[in-house]
Amino acid sequence: MVKTLRPQNYNEVLYVAHYFRKGVTVLMDLSDLSHDEAKQLVDFAAGLVFARRGALGRVDRRLFLLQP
Amino acid sequence: MVKTLRPQNYNEVLYVAHYFRKGVTVLMDLSDLSHDEAKQLVDFAAGLVFARRGALGRVDRRLFLLQP
Repeated sequence: MVKTLRPQNYNEVLYVAHYFRKGVTVLMDLSDLSHDEAKQLVDFAAGLVFARRGALGRVDRRLFLLQP
Repeated sequence: MVKTLRPQNYNEVLYVAHYFRKGVTVLMDLSDLSHDEAKQLVDFAAGLVFARRGALGRVDRRLFLLQP
């Protein structure tokens, strides 16, 4: 199962974290964010993934796959 | 035990992650980084901490405590 999420602002990274922490693979679509916000979410996601020895992949310019 | 780390660049966040992942409380001193790099490390740390249901506290302007 892959959960696709398209955060509308920085705070919505919490949804990404929520699913990821439950062991769900998340496809994170950052198309609706500014460049700066998108960068912040990628850094957050990197930390999230690193903590659980998961994997963070860039699928497209604004699309990232987080695997627990 | 608290491990104090003072990253010199973005890549050195890996040392922070390494200790944190082992269950060590880390005091992260960002004094030597630019504003932008420091911001990136804080976002990374936020993700790291969130993944493990830990706590991220700001001790001082450039000093953060990561508790597993």
